[in-house]
Amino acid sequence: MKNIPVVMILFGGSGDLAHRKLYPALFNLYEQGLIHDNFAVIGTARRPWSHEYLREQVSDAIHETHDTVDENELKAFASHFYYQSHDVTNVEHYEILKNLAQELDDRYSAQGNRLFYMAMAPRFFGTIATHINDQDLTGSGFNRIVVEKPFGHDLASAEELNKQITASFDENDIFRIDHYLGKEMVQNIMPMRFTNPMVQNIMPMRFTNPMVQNIWCSKYIKNIQVTLAERLGVEARGGYYDTSGALRDMVQNHIFQIITLLAMPEPKDLSSASVHQAKQDLLKSLIIPTPDDVKKYFVRGQYLGSDTTFAYKQEPNVDPESTTETFVAGKVKFNEGPIAGVPIYFRTGKEFKEKKNRIDIVLKHINNPYGQAHSNNITIVIDPTSEIYFTINGKRIDQPGIRRENLTYEFSKAEMAKVPDGYERLLHDVFVNDSTNFTHWSELKRYWEFIDAVEDAWQKENEAGNPAIAQYLPYRMGPKEANTIFESPTEHWIYE
Amino acid sequence: MKNIPVVMILFGGSGDLAHRKLYPALFNLYEQGLIHDNFAVIGTARRPWSHEYLREQVSDAIHETHDTVDENELKAFASHFYYQSHDVTNVEHYEILKNLAQELDDRYSAQGNRLFYMAMAPRFFGTIATHINDQDLTGSGFNRIVVEKPFGHDLASAEELNKQITASFDENDIFRIDHYLGKEMVQNIMPMRFTNPMVQNIMPMRFTNPMVQNIWCSKYIKNIQVTLAERLGVEARGGYYDTSGALRDMVQNHIFQIITLLAMPEPKDLSSASVHQAKQDLLKSLIIPTPDDVKKYFVRGQYLGSDTTFAYKQEPNVDPESTTETFVAGKVKFNEGPIAGVPIYFRTGKEFKEKKNRIDIVLKHINNPYGQAHSNNITIVIDPTSEIYFTINGKRIDQPGIRRENLTYEFSKAEMAKVPDGYERLLHDVFVNDSTNFTHWSELKRYWEFIDAVEDAWQKENEAGNPAIAQYLPYRMGPKEANTIFESPTEHWIYE
Repeated sequence: MKNIPVVMILFGGSGDLAHRKLYPALFNLYEQGLIHDNFAVIGTARRPWSHEYLREQVSDAIHETHDTVDENELKAFASHFYYQSHDVTNVEHYEILKNLAQELDDRYSAQGNRLFYMAMAPRFFGTIATHINDQDLTGSGFNRIVVEKPFGHDLASAEELNKQITASFDENDIFRIDHYLGKEMVQNIMPMRFTNPMVQNIMPMRFTNPMVQNIWCSKYIKNIQVTLAERLGVEARGGYYDTSGALRDMVQNHIFQIITLLAMPEPKDLSSASVHQAKQDLLKSLIIPTPDDVKKYFVRGQYLGSDTTFAYKQEPNVDPESTTETFVAGKVKFNEGPIAGVPIYFRTGKEFKEKKNRIDIVLKHINNPYGQAHSNNITIVIDPTSEIYFTINGKRIDQPGIRRENLTYEFSKAEMAKVPDGYERLLHDVFVNDSTNFTHWSELKRYWEFIDAVEDAWQKENEAGNPAIAQYLPYRMGPKEANTIFESPTEHWIYE
Repeated sequence: MKNIPVVMILFGGSGDLAHRKLYPALFNLYEQGLIHDNFAVIGTARRPWSHEYLREQVSDAIHETHDTVDENELKAFASHFYYQSHDVTNVEHYEILKNLAQELDDRYSAQGNRLFYMAMAPRFFGTIATHINDQDLTGSGFNRIVVEKPFGHDLASAEELNKQITASFDENDIFRIDHYLGKEMVQNIMPMRFTNPMVQNIMPMRFTNPMVQNIWCSKYIKNIQVTLAERLGVEARGGYYDTSGALRDMVQNHIFQIITLLAMPEPKDLSSASVHQAKQDLLKSLIIPTPDDVKKYFVRGQYLGSDTTFAYKQEPNVDPESTTETFVAGKVKFNEGPIAGVPIYFRTGKEFKEKKNRIDIVLKHINNPYGQAHSNNITIVIDPTSEIYFTINGKRIDQPGIRRENLTYEFSKAEMAKVPDGYERLLHDVFVNDSTNFTHWSELKRYWEFIDAVEDAWQKENEAGNPAIAQYLPYRMGPKEANTIFESPTEHWIYE
């Protein structure tokens, strides 16, 4: 594997994400040799840490995530880490950073390559981007930037942030990270769905996966259901969460990226440009909901308390009169693409009965002469297990009639052990300059247009007084009102 | 459940089939109340057993096949059994049988209903049928006859036997039993494949199982493979087997019935008449192989010995110069029906590596841009487990590329425990007069036409000297020559 020379500047070096995800991912990439002799990482944050203290932190992070560690390797790896205490608004601090980066570039022969990583609180992203530009922190080699979510709070703020970042970086060098795009079962969607369209032109009706590709169209799919269910409440994040809500926190990014992968037409090849082109072709036809649509097809909710847990409105740092949703269910539809017109339902939020991220593709069906049929479904479980299962109808064993048969593929423990963490995958892609599994600005923009339409409708309801915010019990499947968003009475949530 | 009044006359009452299968099945049907107060069974065979001895045998058979037995129930059940020593060629014996049947009919109020069951050596079937007619054993109620395989040795002998039986019985009352049609996973084929065609006319593209029905056509299916693999050699049956061979013993009945279920068009409803009509519609277009086809697409073999097992030609009662095949692989094709033109390969025989009855439906496919694809398959495992699995292509975990994912539905132990034995199911059907899962004369006739064509070609090869009979090692997958019967070099056995 190529050894990528680079100096990485990590804003948020003392943070939780760096500790739990980025340091372990970097270590794995180091062990694979993707980064090795010619890299350095500058961790920055407000706290007055030393290089040595950061290295200890890095070392702890690796131990916490790895069963066995070669201590010599780890020591060598940690020696590439440097700490710089940093106030994001202080111009001089950027000068110091710049000089340190240049010094490390020389020391490690990093060829002027810079990777900036925004892993701080999102309110600082714009400021940092502006200073990177004003204080000219970019190097003489490649300059890439990774931006964590949320990318803006609405379309206007996202546009503003994008402007600040594009002052120093080309779109191709901006890696808006969505760690769902690094998950195994999400990355499985394209290989499962697609056959080279060139070949399809020459050999129609031949697919890589005829069982799947054949029915992946509006003729056969009745609806698609995406559920990203969290077990817990907001925990310590009440203050931030109350300014965001489930729609911005989960739908604007993860759910929309998953939906896009499910609904997009086949890209003409697997280049990042072609994949993003196919996504954009789809998103042009995304139907933006009217206030009336929002009333009919969207449900927002807030969790109630239990003996041992707070109701959302009683959580620390949450406004007791908050209208922020901790649950949202809604509908997405496209006018074009292979599943044009097919309703795609989603729901996500806090305090579900269990953590479960899954996709259900529900096929149209009719009963057969043997009895009452269940729909054929393709179910993809993303978390906490990795599973695909097909539900078909088979014969009942002990009496006349038909029944569901679930054909399951579940990753074994040995397979799960081989699955790299999403961050490792995505950092790998950043190093090798592959933007395929990152969010392009045009996608982000379109997602925000949709989200804003829903938020605006809700805002108007709030202002009119007495907004419909369903209060739901924890340890359930969200509010029962979420069962009413379907277009037809024959539709229902497959995962209950 | 209706209590069916009947006197059953069982030719072969001291035999293995009666002991292992029929008595346990009858007991289960008795416990379900399908036969109860108004039935009697006359077991006949040459041996001079008493009623009491037969009842002990029945009782033993139930104990051997049931974990728990209600002894009072069993005693009551066994009291319905009577034994009559019988020489099948002795006219007077038929008179005795007739009188006993009438006596039991009176005693049990069996309403003149008679069920004859031919479970003896097949060479006696014709004689028995003739005497049933000549000595007028039929009753004043319904008269049905169950005939075990083989039904004839070739078309001519089958026609002769059929003539003898139809002298006393209508086609509708003749139940040519094929116990494969009583197996759970074979009975699952129709409910999985079909949607009421009337509904399909009104709502095209709506299926009960769109994932299955969609691809069940010549456009998508590359080939079908039926494997009925036996682990053992001929054991004590060498004498009989040497007059039969794998083609007659397994293909003429079980394999052809399975193939018919896979290839038949949808019946217009589920009545026995409609199902048989659909089968006959298919079988009209069965392509009878020419001697050239037989040379190209058929392989026969004989097993060799090992340290602990005999070669076929050394088995007791087998002609050391025998040309009888213990293995056969071949090809079946239809000119009409949903999979017209699709090659259906089969293989069966003795001394495979393991007992395994399975069907593989192999779909046409092409590679995709992610890598080299495997075909999508639908696999139905009939024995020793009950499984369906779909093979699709998914993403490789740890490196770029695609790999097989097997989505499996395997019956749990609890489900397996609920599966009735095939004989129980089929005897049930005989009692309730449902011929759906029995072989109609027109099907049998067509199967024999096919078998005769192959046997004739082989016979000519034998006569010409030096016939191609592959000698194969035991504990394998038959002779390697079976890998050469495919129409195209891209085809191969899925189960290896």
